[in-house]
Amino acid sequence: MGHSADAGLRVVQWMGNAVRLLDQRHLPQQECWLDCNDSDAVATAIHAMVVRGAPAIGIAAAYGAVLAAQSAWAGWPAVATRDVTASAAFDAALRRLAAARPTAVNLHWAVTRVRAEVTSTADDPRAVCLAVARAIEAEDLAANRRMGELGADRIAPGSRVLTHCNAGALATAGHGTALGVIRSAFARGQIEAVYADETRPWLQGARLTAWELLRDGIPVTLLADAAAAWAMHSGRIDWVIVGADRIAANGDVANKIGTYMLAVAARANGVRFMVVAPTSTFDPACPGGSAIPVEERAPEELLEVAGRRIAAAGVSAWNPVFDVTPASLIDVIVTEHGCIDRPDAEGVRALLATAGLLPAAE
Amino acid sequence: MGHSADAGLRVVQWMGNAVRLLDQRHLPQQECWLDCNDSDAVATAIHAMVVRGAPAIGIAAAYGAVLAAQSAWAGWPAVATRDVTASAAFDAALRRLAAARPTAVNLHWAVTRVRAEVTSTADDPRAVCLAVARAIEAEDLAANRRMGELGADRIAPGSRVLTHCNAGALATAGHGTALGVIRSAFARGQIEAVYADETRPWLQGARLTAWELLRDGIPVTLLADAAAAWAMHSGRIDWVIVGADRIAANGDVANKIGTYMLAVAARANGVRFMVVAPTSTFDPACPGGSAIPVEERAPEELLEVAGRRIAAAGVSAWNPVFDVTPASLIDVIVTEHGCIDRPDAEGVRALLATAGLLPAAE
Repeated sequence: MGHSADAGLRVVQWMGNAVRLLDQRHLPQQECWLDCNDSDAVATAIHAMVVRGAPAIGIAAAYGAVLAAQSAWAGWPAVATRDVTASAAFDAALRRLAAARPTAVNLHWAVTRVRAEVTSTADDPRAVCLAVARAIEAEDLAANRRMGELGADRIAPGSRVLTHCNAGALATAGHGTALGVIRSAFARGQIEAVYADETRPWLQGARLTAWELLRDGIPVTLLADAAAAWAMHSGRIDWVIVGADRIAANGDVANKIGTYMLAVAARANGVRFMVVAPTSTFDPACPGGSAIPVEERAPEELLEVAGRRIAAAGVSAWNPVFDVTPASLIDVIVTEHGCIDRPDAEGVRALLATAGLLPAAE
Repeated sequence: MGHSADAGLRVVQWMGNAVRLLDQRHLPQQECWLDCNDSDAVATAIHAMVVRGAPAIGIAAAYGAVLAAQSAWAGWPAVATRDVTASAAFDAALRRLAAARPTAVNLHWAVTRVRAEVTSTADDPRAVCLAVARAIEAEDLAANRRMGELGADRIAPGSRVLTHCNAGALATAGHGTALGVIRSAFARGQIEAVYADETRPWLQGARLTAWELLRDGIPVTLLADAAAAWAMHSGRIDWVIVGADRIAANGDVANKIGTYMLAVAARANGVRFMVVAPTSTFDPACPGGSAIPVEERAPEELLEVAGRRIAAAGVSAWNPVFDVTPASLIDVIVTEHGCIDRPDAEGVRALLATAGLLPAAE
């Protein structure tokens, strides 16, 4: 279950009247699937990190919107597409979906796209939402395959790469962003070694990235997050390759806590730094990293490991789950519409304009 | 048990015919004490990290040498101090003690000092060893108090400090090195906030530093190791304060894995970086960091947390437990004989010469 010949692992699946999610909190020990029967259950699952990874969150939210439309317009066409009560209920459900995680912009992007499509037609909103959700999923998979090739073009044969958190099939419609590049480069025989940070506090590297890469026969070596800089200093790493949760108009990148640490260490050690993200991750309305909201989660995530209390009683914790890497520390951002080398506001604007996502610069 | 009005917590205690160690593997949940009845049991406890922290390891090894002398010269004076068989057994035991951890130079320093004292006299080797061990312990406590004052002199009122691993009373004869400076500065009212990295894989920050500081009424906030650089970038930190396991002749510092990451991030963000270590931590015979042996430990330490497997099956791990911070990234090294600002080979030599630990430079 959850696999297809086409995309490999698919962590978000549309079941007709439910959204089925691979519950990543139980990996790698158990492969549990959770069926969400209404949009609020999807929002709760997103907040609880049943599903995580910016693109996968966007896809889950889009299918969650289908459930919201099914509920609001159960009586369609007797209840019209522009019925005030139905529209209000739908909008409220979309707002709850959008609020489930504050940092990942794909979530807002997906919800906004669904809402725009529904309000631009008098067709059955349930069918409209489903078509949008399926399109978002298909586009994400195609984008990841394209990014995999574009990113692999930058990787010299014999490269040793380091990744952080999980920006793989588990975080997307399939293939992955950062892991998509690693998969594509590995398939070409360019990768000599893959290192993965364990990624405290959720241990996505140890639990998810290791599981996902080994499942595809790609050897991977775990290391403590604090050892990554030393690995670079010791000459073990050629490229750091990570995903993104939001990219500002100036190229600043919000991603899993620890990404900034990697970027600083990479620059200090002559290691190259690649961000892989679809254009849905860009937030042109956000001028720079300081305007990106950074989610802080409960202290318990640090005070406990695998449900067991580890920290001394009475201690407090600061638990930001994202950080912002300045564009100046990034060598290249890989998107499905091409690469932005040494990103800055001009480079981001040019790429988005070329892709038809912005008015062309005058 | 294990406390004294004078030194606070004492983690290594001489019991007359055994060395009693606070088993730090069980903190903070349990305060277990382990009695080692011969020197090999002490070596095993050092290797297993029952006792850890470079100065505490040195003190434990010195008391372990007393047990070795009691065994080798049980028949003294009928068995003479220079008896070949007894001396060979004693030397072999010292070699096993010295081999228990490769990186901490205090261990070798303590063992070498014990051996030199025993071979320079015909007195009862058991009494000689005990006197040396007691002296090493007393000198360490006095050094820590002195370093606490010297380090605190550098800390401006209202400072926010970050520490890594545990360089506290638990790692020394008492007061601590890095935590000694924090204790002294806190007592003067200079500290606004203490942050502690959790310090994977052994979680010494979450388990030990938090426990030790809270026990003294010093509030502390934990953070993930990967969040430390972001804390600096966010303007939350004024000083990074760490201990050391070995300092090379050029001022390069071997310390817990992650220290190098902190130093790189501190320099990039205008945060000051202080190393606190007694002169016994210096290894004048070691020209630079690349000559320091860096201990790598079992992958299981990363693949499991608190005895529970967390990582995906089949994954390998790279588990260096120390790294080397270049002297160029260090603002000041605080010793019991004074401070070395912007350390380099000349500064290290001058300090050690002033302290009478080297011939004066010509």
